Amino acid sequence: MRTARVFRLSMAHPGDLSELDRLIADGTVRGADVVAIIGKTEGNGGVNDFTRGYFTQTLMLLLSKYLNKPAEQLIREIPCVLSGGTEGVMSPHYSVFCISEAEPAPEAGPSLAIGTAFSDPVPAEDIGRRAHVDSVADAVRTAIANAGIERLEDVHFVQVKCPCVTVARAAAAIAAGKTPLTNDPNRSMAYARAAGAFGVAVALDELAPSAFTDASLLSDFSIQSPRASISSGVEVESNEVVVLGNSPRWMGALRISHRPMADALDIGAVVDVLADLGIAAKPQVSPTDAARIATVLVKCEPDRRGRIRGNRHTMLDDTDINAQRHIRGAVAGLVAGVIGDGRIFVSGGAEHQGPDGGGLIAVIASQKEGLA
Amino acid sequence: MRTARVFRLSMAHPGDLSELDRLIADGTVRGADVVAIIGKTEGNGGVNDFTRGYFTQTLMLLLSKYLNKPAEQLIREIPCVLSGGTEGVMSPHYSVFCISEAEPAPEAGPSLAIGTAFSDPVPAEDIGRRAHVDSVADAVRTAIANAGIERLEDVHFVQVKCPCVTVARAAAAIAAGKTPLTNDPNRSMAYARAAGAFGVAVALDELAPSAFTDASLLSDFSIQSPRASISSGVEVESNEVVVLGNSPRWMGALRISHRPMADALDIGAVVDVLADLGIAAKPQVSPTDAARIATVLVKCEPDRRGRIRGNRHTMLDDTDINAQRHIRGAVAGLVAGVIGDGRIFVSGGAEHQGPDGGGLIAVIASQKEGLA
Amino acid sequence: MRTARVFRLSMAHPGDLSELDRLIADGTVRGADVVAIIGKTEGNGGVNDFTRGYFTQTLMLLLSKYLNKPAEQLIREIPCVLSGGTEGVMSPHYSVFCISEAEPAPEAGPSLAIGTAFSDPVPAEDIGRRAHVDSVADAVRTAIANAGIERLEDVHFVQVKCPCVTVARAAAAIAAGKTPLTNDPNRSMAYARAAGAFGVAVALDELAPSAFTDASLLSDFSIQSPRASISSGVEVESNEVVVLGNSPRWMGALRISHRPMADALDIGAVVDVLADLGIAAKPQVSPTDAARIATVLVKCEPDRRGRIRGNRHTMLDDTDINAQRHIRGAVAGLVAGVIGDGRIFVSGGAEHQGPDGGGLIAVIASQKEGLA
Amino acid sequence: MRTARVFRLSMAHPGDLSELDRLIADGTVRGADVVAIIGKTEGNGGVNDFTRGYFTQTLMLLLSKYLNKPAEQLIREIPCVLSGGTEGVMSPHYSVFCISEAEPAPEAGPSLAIGTAFSDPVPAEDIGRRAHVDSVADAVRTAIANAGIERLEDVHFVQVKCPCVTVARAAAAIAAGKTPLTNDPNRSMAYARAAGAFGVAVALDELAPSAFTDASLLSDFSIQSPRASISSGVEVESNEVVVLGNSPRWMGALRISHRPMADALDIGAVVDVLADLGIAAKPQVSPTDAARIATVLVKCEPDRRGRIRGNRHTMLDDTDINAQRHIRGAVAGLVAGVIGDGRIFVSGGAEHQGPDGGGLIAVIASQKEGLA
Repeated sequence: MRTARVFRLSMAHPGDLSELDRLIADGTVRGADVVAIIGKTEGNGGVNDFTRGYFTQTLMLLLSKYLNKPAEQLIREIPCVLSGGTEGVMSPHYSVFCISEAEPAPEAGPSLAIGTAFSDPVPAEDIGRRAHVDSVADAVRTAIANAGIERLEDVHFVQVKCPCVTVARAAAAIAAGKTPLTNDPNRSMAYARAAGAFGVAVALDELAPSAFTDASLLSDFSIQSPRASISSGVEVESNEVVVLGNSPRWMGALRISHRPMADALDIGAVVDVLADLGIAAKPQVSPTDAARIATVLVKCEPDRRGRIRGNRHTMLDDTDINAQRHIRGAVAGLVAGVIGDGRIFVSGGAEHQGPDGGGLIAVIASQKEGLA
Repeated sequence: MRTARVFRLSMAHPGDLSELDRLIADGTVRGADVVAIIGKTEGNGGVNDFTRGYFTQTLMLLLSKYLNKPAEQLIREIPCVLSGGTEGVMSPHYSVFCISEAEPAPEAGPSLAIGTAFSDPVPAEDIGRRAHVDSVADAVRTAIANAGIERLEDVHFVQVKCPCVTVARAAAAIAAGKTPLTNDPNRSMAYARAAGAFGVAVALDELAPSAFTDASLLSDFSIQSPRASISSGVEVESNEVVVLGNSPRWMGALRISHRPMADALDIGAVVDVLADLGIAAKPQVSPTDAARIATVLVKCEPDRRGRIRGNRHTMLDDTDINAQRHIRGAVAGLVAGVIGDGRIFVSGGAEHQGPDGGGLIAVIASQKEGLA
Repeated sequence: MRTARVFRLSMAHPGDLSELDRLIADGTVRGADVVAIIGKTEGNGGVNDFTRGYFTQTLMLLLSKYLNKPAEQLIREIPCVLSGGTEGVMSPHYSVFCISEAEPAPEAGPSLAIGTAFSDPVPAEDIGRRAHVDSVADAVRTAIANAGIERLEDVHFVQVKCPCVTVARAAAAIAAGKTPLTNDPNRSMAYARAAGAFGVAVALDELAPSAFTDASLLSDFSIQSPRASISSGVEVESNEVVVLGNSPRWMGALRISHRPMADALDIGAVVDVLADLGIAAKPQVSPTDAARIATVLVKCEPDRRGRIRGNRHTMLDDTDINAQRHIRGAVAGLVAGVIGDGRIFVSGGAEHQGPDGGGLIAVIASQKEGLA
Repeated sequence: MRTARVFRLSMAHPGDLSELDRLIADGTVRGADVVAIIGKTEGNGGVNDFTRGYFTQTLMLLLSKYLNKPAEQLIREIPCVLSGGTEGVMSPHYSVFCISEAEPAPEAGPSLAIGTAFSDPVPAEDIGRRAHVDSVADAVRTAIANAGIERLEDVHFVQVKCPCVTVARAAAAIAAGKTPLTNDPNRSMAYARAAGAFGVAVALDELAPSAFTDASLLSDFSIQSPRASISSGVEVESNEVVVLGNSPRWMGALRISHRPMADALDIGAVVDVLADLGIAAKPQVSPTDAARIATVLVKCEPDRRGRIRGNRHTMLDDTDINAQRHIRGAVAGLVAGVIGDGRIFVSGGAEHQGPDGGGLIAVIASQKEGLA
């Protein structure tokens, strides 16, 4: 029977995997058990954020050393989903998801289940279009099957990392007679995230394939999945998928829950998702309970209507700071304040991921004291 | 008997005073009752933030029109303390502090008291030195007397806006044979804020004049005042002071309280200061109670030791986004989430203002339903 | 007979009009002779650049004082075209264009001619569409007539300041049932500049009204005018036009010339436009000749294909610095180096203004020594 | 007899060494001949610029593959000097310096000579102090000897990459009872560059060890070396030195020259250094001559007095864009415009490297047509 474990580790810089190195070296983690990474690096989260590529290169070199497989192969087997930008109180860190086999134990209740998948590379001209949506949906279904999750309602979080176009990729596609949706990289990242969210919604039966067209992406925000968390970056060419849910076919103390966030001030969603896991925040999680929290995953978005609860915000009009950096910093300030810990994954660009102007939060926590 | 009123108004841009114009035009506010403004404009909060000067110019023109005094005179009579930078969920707004006279009513308990003062201009070479501290302390004492507050413990918040040097001012001083402390404008702003905090601490008998030297500023962070809120900017030449406290010699429903914030995750301080005023946040203030809140004033600071509760933050190492913009966005995210409203004054640069790495929060609220 | 004069003045900050104040006070400039301002303020040049509004407010207050007309009226009579962003070696400054009447002198050759015009306000939903183009074209024709320039080839520079949408304006238009082209302010500024360039091209008979559709804007870059210089900003609601050319019906030592710039490295265009005016740069303009230069006006653009002469640039992929800030700084470095003076107007956003990826340069210089 | 060769290669991103890989794979370059790299990556050039570390890791992996040595060893043998920030028209690229042995040919004149050296690691508390200066001077002398350059006047360019403190390194040093000069990373980078420049000046007999104290660094700007080019970054712990000069003991068509730049507008220095190498720029280098240019190395600095030739600049007062990014973009615009090519190394932070407010330019070019 499979057991999922999650190690949340700090880094001194984007090329620093020393904590994982130590855990493998001392036998705490078996290299072969590592199935996915989700982390925050300290770049800007935009097109020119190379902290993600740097971390990924270093990670794959490390695993290559232990697994005796070429890094080029591992990068196609182990999703490494990074969100750049540790604005404000966020602390650069990465969560290592591991699976080990063990004798079935007579425990009650379902446990955290993990599944992963990779799609084929997405051509530049497909980014942000139905072909991209279909590609994501197929990969999500594969990952759910891989996790052995039987009921779609038991899926709580689907992380997808989607490729986007750069100016160079767009130019190459145009030279080849193709028509990318846009050659503006920041817009391309947004379209890619939209396609990812639609793909998740389709795979989770939340959205019928006939219920949208290409024009719905970044336009009809009534279409959304509160379980989709999509990143986009220049450093990937395929969609990389990590599915997280609960399953009676898995063992271990970890369990996951999620909640949509209605807007950037929705502290209630934070408190509620913790309560789902038996953790109180009055007003802050106690150190004992905080030690039970394995990882915190948040998506958020600057409200595109320019207001939050009726009051004007300035994130979208700021030429100096990218709007995603603004919102990540604000929402991370709120969530870290409730939990008392800056090691949280808060990722911007939540288009179609949870309510418009809001997003979602998922927490994995141990049902016993500590993370054992 | 004096009554203090506070109007929290929104602006569409830094030159938009239309809401105050309307309130004066319709008689809600008498122009002559306006004694101070504290607001957030949407600049960057740094040396080259001209949104503060633009707002101030527009405000003084408006008051000049109603009061029939030249703007040049009003700018020396009415403190207009602006903090630039509405990062994240903050909404550009300004609080107008008004004083009116009325017949004494047999109400119980003390009410919000307001006092203001201006120092003489501070020469560029004095910025951040003892002469600057003394200048602030004198002005604070004048403002306390002006407010009629008799016990220093009844002072809850002292806002000071200090001048700083620009490259040009520093060069002029050097050309005149003077020695400014620094010709780096961002450092000058920090020294100016330190001098302001020391000045407040001296005036409030928290710090003996003999207990520090010039070298203590920006160096000995055990020296701090949890009631000092200091801004610095190129657009002022004198120290401008607004003292807020409670006094039995004032009337009205408003009262103020404050709390130090231990660090950027100190949600407890936010909940506690609200509780001081009889407002619950479980986890968020109810809309009814939120309507009682007249204004929220926060100071914060990126922890200079590079860590928050043991976890590395990246604010001080970021060449792209100023550290003060980072911390304002994060703390505002937390406070706005508890209160459910982005119209909060969160100002960075809290050196010596509250605990190191933390800051302070003050709230003014009505003791009755609504703001009457 | 009319004589054009141009005063290039420095400012200490965006609200500093003291140099113009002094020129009017000492009689050098008659307030009533001021017909237009073109300047560089030290903001970011983006949607949230309020240095333009601050300067404009201060200018109009100053002129109001001398002309005894309300500022609200002057702002609709005197184009004040500001470009925010003095990246790199650029120095904040403004050129004051004045017209005075004098007895005809038997001088040879044509002289600098100036004409101005204002359109009606442009509704948010028209921005970047044909109605916007038509509105600009009409205003340009009015300004040419106003300048008394008879041959279109004698027009050398047409500056237009176009309004754009903010998030708030877009939301208001949508609420009113209108459909703005975009609610992304940065994109709106680009569309507004495109409409301005098309309008100039139409007015100068470079482009037939039937030769384009709405879809041509920001899409068909073969359509361009090497005499159009378009800015866009939140602080205007109408198109403001300043036409500059040479005319035998004007007197004075000043003359204007212009050249398209093929790309951001086109130093030849800079040298050539100076040569047109009898000024050598080997490699730099001599101080004597530099004193003859009244103003330098440049438009530029980050090449949208991502390459300059075959080499990749990174301006469009930079999430930290807006691409227009990048290109302004680079082209200003080149032009200022040739001229030996940082008081140059270099404005980004040259879509359809000169060759794609390049832009244009215009210089006004005295045909005699000095500017006398 | 040794021959120096220089290959200037482009990169698609900071982890892209494919051009060098191809040159080694096809035999154009022997891996063992690579002795140094000087390049521009597309980061921000500040403390949190990880593009340098990413490039370096990738380079060492590549060379490790060909040389069959561990990357950890190579990184201590081959200086890889990177400057982050390709503002404006600059194109990300790297110059590979190679040395090969060949039979002496009866050529006239001296040729490019290269020498390298590494110092021991510099403790955090030594950064920016005399111990740091001495460490650099020793390494420079070693590199000159290594290059076989006998006369100090034949040294034209000394590139040093110095370590700096981060917030974390400073905290660690303080915890160990040491006193770093500053714990502000950006200031530490400046002090490190100053120490590097002093070290070069000492090694080149331009500065007597007794002629300065610790207090002279970043203070007495009359001390400068027009041949020192210093970078600083978090990714190195030792001083890495590359000395470039001309020597009769070397063969080949390449030769180097340098000139101080008096200020950021000094186009004359650019034209003169090209003329030294027999290349005309009227106003731009011809494509044929441009093909002779092997590499262009520039250092520059925002004038700390706030003015360039009397006109105010705003680089030092900008809270949004780091001043070094401003100046690099401006000077690169000028130099690239003269040369007609954006593949130039322009590095900021020229404290004590060339005249105050200016810097230096060095060019390596072939004395024959093309780079053969």
